[in-house]
Amino acid sequence: MSDLSALPTPSLLVDRARVERNVARMGARIAGLGAALRPHVKTHKSIEVGRLQAAAGMRGITVSTLAEARAFAAHGFDDITYAVPIERGKFDAVAGMNAAGTRLGVITDDIAVPGPLGEAARQAGVTIDTWVKVDCGYHRCGVDPEGPALAELAARIGERTHLRFAGILAHAGHSYQARGAAAILAVARSERDVMVAAAGRLAAAGVPVPSVSIGSTPTAAHVDHLDGVTEVRTGNYAFFDVTQVAIGSCAQEDCALSVLAAVVHRDTSRGKVILDAGAIALSKDTGITDPDGVTHFGRVLDLEGRDLGLRVTGLSQEHGVVGVGDDALLTRLGVGTLVRVLVNHSCLTAAQHAEYVVCDGLQVVDRWVNHRGW
Amino acid sequence: MSDLSALPTPSLLVDRARVERNVARMGARIAGLGAALRPHVKTHKSIEVGRLQAAAGMRGITVSTLAEARAFAAHGFDDITYAVPIERGKFDAVAGMNAAGTRLGVITDDIAVPGPLGEAARQAGVTIDTWVKVDCGYHRCGVDPEGPALAELAARIGERTHLRFAGILAHAGHSYQARGAAAILAVARSERDVMVAAAGRLAAAGVPVPSVSIGSTPTAAHVDHLDGVTEVRTGNYAFFDVTQVAIGSCAQEDCALSVLAAVVHRDTSRGKVILDAGAIALSKDTGITDPDGVTHFGRVLDLEGRDLGLRVTGLSQEHGVVGVGDDALLTRLGVGTLVRVLVNHSCLTAAQHAEYVVCDGLQVVDRWVNHRGW
Repeated sequence: MSDLSALPTPSLLVDRARVERNVARMGARIAGLGAALRPHVKTHKSIEVGRLQAAAGMRGITVSTLAEARAFAAHGFDDITYAVPIERGKFDAVAGMNAAGTRLGVITDDIAVPGPLGEAARQAGVTIDTWVKVDCGYHRCGVDPEGPALAELAARIGERTHLRFAGILAHAGHSYQARGAAAILAVARSERDVMVAAAGRLAAAGVPVPSVSIGSTPTAAHVDHLDGVTEVRTGNYAFFDVTQVAIGSCAQEDCALSVLAAVVHRDTSRGKVILDAGAIALSKDTGITDPDGVTHFGRVLDLEGRDLGLRVTGLSQEHGVVGVGDDALLTRLGVGTLVRVLVNHSCLTAAQHAEYVVCDGLQVVDRWVNHRGW
Repeated sequence: MSDLSALPTPSLLVDRARVERNVARMGARIAGLGAALRPHVKTHKSIEVGRLQAAAGMRGITVSTLAEARAFAAHGFDDITYAVPIERGKFDAVAGMNAAGTRLGVITDDIAVPGPLGEAARQAGVTIDTWVKVDCGYHRCGVDPEGPALAELAARIGERTHLRFAGILAHAGHSYQARGAAAILAVARSERDVMVAAAGRLAAAGVPVPSVSIGSTPTAAHVDHLDGVTEVRTGNYAFFDVTQVAIGSCAQEDCALSVLAAVVHRDTSRGKVILDAGAIALSKDTGITDPDGVTHFGRVLDLEGRDLGLRVTGLSQEHGVVGVGDDALLTRLGVGTLVRVLVNHSCLTAAQHAEYVVCDGLQVVDRWVNHRGW
């Protein structure tokens, strides 16, 4: 065990107690609402966090890349949904993983996919769980829940011997436009109600819907009931971040991820310091503009985690610019001083680092690998 | 050898012929201007590109991380400048690399650094090349070239037995605010003239300046003479990117880096497709807003490299949104279609990937490792 102050900078820190608390809370919350939890591991890409999520109760996991699927499958996670729409370049890889014993489901919103996907499954001698992606209002991907494509696509999947229609699936990404509990709750209700209604129409048309899957961290944190929903996919909640605080999904004290950085330059005339955490260490995600109109790349805490009231307002590749208006604070932040940046978007920042330095207070207690790539 | 169309998506592609041409051109250009070239390898972090740069004539290399320094040193690059201001957390690592035979120089603009840095060097039994970082107008780091700190810091370094005052060093990052050849040339002349004047003042005060180091890709591409400058550090030119095209540093045909992606969703009613290259594959660098007011994350080319006139206008973690106004084009871009994204900022995009897929036309001819991390 070593102390945080002995780490090289930049290093990616994760607060173990906060992750454990976040994971346990969401597990209990979704169980209490009567649905299964299928955490999205794209946020952490970490086997260890996945195991915490399994211990908190889950049906399986969700992934955003085949690299995540392979890494988790290699560690015994055998029920996985790959939640980016599938295309032909990945059919054989998915079929192969199913043949090797992992139940790796896919999603699609395209009528041209089930035919060749079913053929790839047939050739591999497997049956692939295939979800219809539904647009519940985010308008990124998915079929119109009220249009004819939903039933047509479900039927097309059902026709293929080597595909199994697994259900309908949506992601309320527009919840990130909401601010505060009431606004998030409105999106959460809409996400749920749109999907339950769509499942009802399919069932009425003679197409049984085995599962109704929804999920985003803001909506999962605020939804009031989940009647008719069978599973929730949410990922960011394991770490949370400054964006989730700004939306109203969590408190700042729930944020588990920060980047340890050192001051490498101090400019007393311009009132700023430069950190050795830049665009690569933090990502260029601008998060949500603060109420005072400042767009930034994260909040600056001291080594012990106390908020210094500073923000990273500029980034170049390996430099982070922090404006410091207070002279006493500027005096404290000499070259070599260690600080922590509480990040805007934990999913993106985590993916910038090969590993997590796991902390208990100021002590380093473990290292976790981030299974990056594609 | 395989064809690009057989690659998984997303993959990072580098056009070998363009890299070779870019590297040869800049090597010849800086040699013709009578200065040495010390390429900044932070753009590519690739031993193979470094070797091309060495073959095109160079004095040594510049790095932005100690991980780059270690990787290049392990491959025989023994003259390296670490061009982020040094702080105490890295003193021992730098001294250790010098002790192991790499001439690893550092930069500082802080009067409190030479004392303890010199002590670390003494304990390791080495002499560390130490540059004074000068602010030539970018205002990120560096001492005022006209203020007293420059001579004081040079003297403080010179007093330390185990430090060698290597010279003065600047980076005209404000050249990225320029648009077009004339505006860049004005910044380039200022970068040069500010530094040559600063060196002259130091020399007049009895402090010989062994080297005057400047550099940015825009200014290196346009500067008219380098009298009084001894070396140029420029990095992006190996790959160039959409930002450099917009500034006026290069032509689009010089851009060597692109991300291969597949269409995973097509929405004919909204006129858009979604690619499987998102914020992680591309980075969230918004580059320079186009003349029509659109801010984007890269230009979309077809598999053969022809510009489709499309842009990535939105990103989530593994999704890239591409607006497609033309119906015929939308018909072509069915799910599974492969495209290439010409990236805004090659340094950041490259760092998102573990390796380069090296291409000659549509053929894969090699793989190069990206030495990421810190």
